[in-house]
Amino acid sequence: MQKIEVGVLGATGMVGQHFVKFLRSHPWFEVKWAGASDRSAGKKYRDATNWRLDGVMPETVAGLTVEECKPGHAPRLVFSAMDASVATEIEREFASAGHVVVSNSRNHRMEADVPLLVPEVNPDHLRIVPLQQRNRGWKGQIVTNPNCSTVVLTMALGPLKQFGIARVVVTTMQAISGAGYPGVASVDIMANVIPFIGGEEEKMQQETQKILGEYRDGRIEPLAAPVSAHCNRVPVVDGHTETVSVELAKGPSREDIIQAFGEFSSVPQERQLPSAPVQPVIYMEQADRPQPRRDVKRQRGMAVFTGRLRPCPVFGWKFIAMGHNTVRGAAGAAVLNAELMYTEGLLD
Amino acid sequence: MQKIEVGVLGATGMVGQHFVKFLRSHPWFEVKWAGASDRSAGKKYRDATNWRLDGVMPETVAGLTVEECKPGHAPRLVFSAMDASVATEIEREFASAGHVVVSNSRNHRMEADVPLLVPEVNPDHLRIVPLQQRNRGWKGQIVTNPNCSTVVLTMALGPLKQFGIARVVVTTMQAISGAGYPGVASVDIMANVIPFIGGEEEKMQQETQKILGEYRDGRIEPLAAPVSAHCNRVPVVDGHTETVSVELAKGPSREDIIQAFGEFSSVPQERQLPSAPVQPVIYMEQADRPQPRRDVKRQRGMAVFTGRLRPCPVFGWKFIAMGHNTVRGAAGAAVLNAELMYTEGLLD
Amino acid sequence: MQKIEVGVLGATGMVGQHFVKFLRSHPWFEVKWAGASDRSAGKKYRDATNWRLDGVMPETVAGLTVEECKPGHAPRLVFSAMDASVATEIEREFASAGHVVVSNSRNHRMEADVPLLVPEVNPDHLRIVPLQQRNRGWKGQIVTNPNCSTVVLTMALGPLKQFGIARVVVTTMQAISGAGYPGVASVDIMANVIPFIGGEEEKMQQETQKILGEYRDGRIEPLAAPVSAHCNRVPVVDGHTETVSVELAKGPSREDIIQAFGEFSSVPQERQLPSAPVQPVIYMEQADRPQPRRDVKRQRGMAVFTGRLRPCPVFGWKFIAMGHNTVRGAAGAAVLNAELMYTEGLLD
Amino acid sequence: MQKIEVGVLGATGMVGQHFVKFLRSHPWFEVKWAGASDRSAGKKYRDATNWRLDGVMPETVAGLTVEECKPGHAPRLVFSAMDASVATEIEREFASAGHVVVSNSRNHRMEADVPLLVPEVNPDHLRIVPLQQRNRGWKGQIVTNPNCSTVVLTMALGPLKQFGIARVVVTTMQAISGAGYPGVASVDIMANVIPFIGGEEEKMQQETQKILGEYRDGRIEPLAAPVSAHCNRVPVVDGHTETVSVELAKGPSREDIIQAFGEFSSVPQERQLPSAPVQPVIYMEQADRPQPRRDVKRQRGMAVFTGRLRPCPVFGWKFIAMGHNTVRGAAGAAVLNAELMYTEGLLD
Repeated sequence: MQKIEVGVLGATGMVGQHFVKFLRSHPWFEVKWAGASDRSAGKKYRDATNWRLDGVMPETVAGLTVEECKPGHAPRLVFSAMDASVATEIEREFASAGHVVVSNSRNHRMEADVPLLVPEVNPDHLRIVPLQQRNRGWKGQIVTNPNCSTVVLTMALGPLKQFGIARVVVTTMQAISGAGYPGVASVDIMANVIPFIGGEEEKMQQETQKILGEYRDGRIEPLAAPVSAHCNRVPVVDGHTETVSVELAKGPSREDIIQAFGEFSSVPQERQLPSAPVQPVIYMEQADRPQPRRDVKRQRGMAVFTGRLRPCPVFGWKFIAMGHNTVRGAAGAAVLNAELMYTEGLLD
Repeated sequence: MQKIEVGVLGATGMVGQHFVKFLRSHPWFEVKWAGASDRSAGKKYRDATNWRLDGVMPETVAGLTVEECKPGHAPRLVFSAMDASVATEIEREFASAGHVVVSNSRNHRMEADVPLLVPEVNPDHLRIVPLQQRNRGWKGQIVTNPNCSTVVLTMALGPLKQFGIARVVVTTMQAISGAGYPGVASVDIMANVIPFIGGEEEKMQQETQKILGEYRDGRIEPLAAPVSAHCNRVPVVDGHTETVSVELAKGPSREDIIQAFGEFSSVPQERQLPSAPVQPVIYMEQADRPQPRRDVKRQRGMAVFTGRLRPCPVFGWKFIAMGHNTVRGAAGAAVLNAELMYTEGLLD
Repeated sequence: MQKIEVGVLGATGMVGQHFVKFLRSHPWFEVKWAGASDRSAGKKYRDATNWRLDGVMPETVAGLTVEECKPGHAPRLVFSAMDASVATEIEREFASAGHVVVSNSRNHRMEADVPLLVPEVNPDHLRIVPLQQRNRGWKGQIVTNPNCSTVVLTMALGPLKQFGIARVVVTTMQAISGAGYPGVASVDIMANVIPFIGGEEEKMQQETQKILGEYRDGRIEPLAAPVSAHCNRVPVVDGHTETVSVELAKGPSREDIIQAFGEFSSVPQERQLPSAPVQPVIYMEQADRPQPRRDVKRQRGMAVFTGRLRPCPVFGWKFIAMGHNTVRGAAGAAVLNAELMYTEGLLD
Repeated sequence: MQKIEVGVLGATGMVGQHFVKFLRSHPWFEVKWAGASDRSAGKKYRDATNWRLDGVMPETVAGLTVEECKPGHAPRLVFSAMDASVATEIEREFASAGHVVVSNSRNHRMEADVPLLVPEVNPDHLRIVPLQQRNRGWKGQIVTNPNCSTVVLTMALGPLKQFGIARVVVTTMQAISGAGYPGVASVDIMANVIPFIGGEEEKMQQETQKILGEYRDGRIEPLAAPVSAHCNRVPVVDGHTETVSVELAKGPSREDIIQAFGEFSSVPQERQLPSAPVQPVIYMEQADRPQPRRDVKRQRGMAVFTGRLRPCPVFGWKFIAMGHNTVRGAAGAAVLNAELMYTEGLLD
């Protein structure tokens, strides 16, 4: 198979680096184009980029010449790792020019005709794309993945939709990675908790309702259940941990829920998409798991782990969910979106 | 004023060291007796104790000869820092022999005739003591303080009792100190979250209901509202942070609640007890506070800090609470209990 | 005593905040003037400053109106917490205009006629000040304190000068505080070591030689002994720890050296300067001390702690030194310098 | 190829778990026997073991029945992860009974007829084995690998032996892993440095001299150069970082040394042993590398990374070395030893 050439918008930043790393040996996609700010354009990627991830920069990308974020020479498929301050216009410009923009940026997520996609949970939301193209007169399109903390929550709630999600209270303990660079200052977070992440709670609440909502007659009807999020930063490198209390209308038993986690499987698994985890939600029986440092790298960071399912005196059930914020919650999420889109013929 | 001589049961352990440190320059109490296991008995405190707290061991205690935990020579007032595995019998033995046992151990907390005291919140629960003495034929008594995470929660909910607490969901992010020694292994917690603390959630749920309950006709009627706790360990040295969602029957406004936090004052403040914080609950207006590392030492660790009061889509209101787990949540809690008891004439 | 009014140049930055905090209840000095960049000028200190230190901003300073860093209205004595990128010109301008500039910035430290002062170690280096004023035609003056890691080393070596320091190899494990804001990114330092701090090794080597040098005939003759520094950043909040191997010409015994540490006392102690530690160098006998988190706050952060003196197979002796980088190594160092200068009549 | 069956002594402890994990998919060796204390004997490995490493226990080992550490049924080749308190006797008993004991324990390392092996550095030290067997009348043998911090140092110094190592001063910043369980208490190390590791400095000094020494006429002549070690614990999960100052008799240039690091290759590379790193010492050009968290997992944890080579004012040259303490410094070291021994015919 001839690999599909892809570009990365904002390739030199932290999120961009995560895309470059995640795509390093991807069987379908190959990074052949790197877009960044004017300041970097014209330089080799290796010179324009202060590589801050573990290990070393992939050699194949290191030699690319960085270009401005303009639609001219980029491949049809571009992943967007743009900073929110500039993503709105640039992503539109690319979509308008015929590019398929698979974006990790928050800018377009909540627009009515833009899919906010978690391939295991709401693959059918892609059906809104033709409307988007019609509405906006675009040959291209924008498809987004959720905020990192939302992915973990919705992957864990996905298997429970069948029981009728009625109310959700979630508290996050979020890792420091993936907040750009320099991101969280060490004097702020070392041996500390920061009980605030700007805009995160609102995103988590709204995005969860959209993702768990239903596509019906040309629109996405959000989940009616109220969702309340408490978002915190903790001194963890990778992996967001979330405590979840959930009210389920149909009153399932503990066994029902654990079975639902374990048997959860969806389109990405059926089609064996390259980045799809074999088992998307893994319930761990040990009393003190999942834990971010110990479990985050399993399944190449693409699964979500749950544990400690127990009765909640207020809501029926409570449990822990944990997932990799920069993989399943960002770069890997977007790549899995693109893989799903490819099998849907949306990249043709 | 002649200082009152006090003893510490379990004086050489971590919690015992916290008592010794907290009482170092107490205006009323002076540690004159240190009880520990047979292994330590007969040694000087400085030789029997591996001091693990910041700074150095107080000289006045360093020279005491450690004794076995037997009622013989101990002062009337003893603080118990006993490990739960041995506290039940030893505390009873002391109370039976006429000692006032002010205990930080969990063993007797939930017994019907034992006060579980937070002096600002339920000072009247001391009224159960005569019943305890009558029931058990004791000249002495046992009075307990709650689990560290419970103190933070109940201090924050105390001011809200007037609004009718209907339901509470709380997630804790608990510090590593105060778990004895070696306590939490560094390979378990470094750059990690452990989403489990054995027995903690049950304690937090039950204790909160008892503390917020009403003393009436010789019994303590627990709060009827369900409380659900998610307890986690995070890499923080001192200070438990808690996210709280609360339903309040009387529908107070944001201003009502903030005013309630700020104006909260109780018997310890009226009587100006030496360890009482001037302001027991401090609401912080900054968007990202309180934070354990930055705020935990204010007010000598005896206040509880709240912040980020905002509407909760599920429950009405949500906010952050934070307090010092080894001070307000352990040694300082017990000392404040003893101060209250002194002013009640219970030490006579 | 009427307090002496002082100003702080760069008052809104992290180092400036440390000055404001350290001077909060100083018996001689009172912060009455705060200088910062144009962007902050005209605002109240509380509005211009993002307070990032533990606890809360001192009320007395919070209400000051921030001014530009121009000599006009500032008090005669100004502490400089300026960033190195702007300190050279501004400090000169103030000194030229008659101000006594007590600077924590690195810019003028190595100039031949500028004292690089550690009051316990080289108080006589102040004798170079008249030359500075003559050379430069200044009514004012600039006096500097060393880099934070240098202070710890020179305080520990000060007592050993009498034995003839012949060679020194030092490795630092430096805390994250005091590097401005945001300073060290958490993704860089969490659960990690960064074996590089730009310019630090050169500063440490040169400054140590200057400080341990001799004032003679109008010049400061640096110590001839070679000093080699390895500087590292570690995940510690406050306190630089240093391993030191030292060759001493006169071959002292272990007892000689420990006695020298313990008996070390100098002009600040004789004159009982308000910020002087009673005992400037404290040798700890415990096998595993000093430790930054446990010892850094003793003696209000103004002492240096040594420990683990043992034979070095290569150099004769090796030991540990540790001190508070933002107190003894920055704000406290400058304030102690000013106190010494006051008693020398240099502020008249 | 039929895999060689191997056993692990002390298989349920932390070091034993590292062996089990490292050998999981080894092409030559397969863990078929697990020895542990009486307490565990008779249980399944999965029940006897509290798995504390990242990820989950290998299924193949989980089902083994743990046996007592007696020579009866164990395979000929056993890896020893025994605690030092019991290793002396048990390892002797196994060697005496004909087993090849490849040990990570410290007990026999410094005995004159026991190889202390780093396969890239002193593969010829295996020539002492026949003497050991003769001396002791053993059909089996004991071969050891060094302490974790020693491996990193000797791998970095190995390439420099050709320049005549004259003096070495090293300071370690050691990770928390690999110290057994619970190992380092979190209240001791969080946001702290512990400037002491019992016995570590002596081990590092002596072992380095033995490893860099010469096998000659039936004995190992230690390196004459004095080595001075300062050993510290820092809050890092995996990877020991070491600052090294070294005097080299032949006065090589910077280029000479960097070339020596880069070209270093030895018997394990020639024979392409399965666990041998392709490039055993990797010099990193970036100003701030190597770093433990970012580099420790490269080359499957089997390489040692050096960096920041620069002139040392005292000793000629100084640099950083870093390696994986539980892989290259423990389990991986022993396995590589066994691989070398296999190709030498020592397992026949």
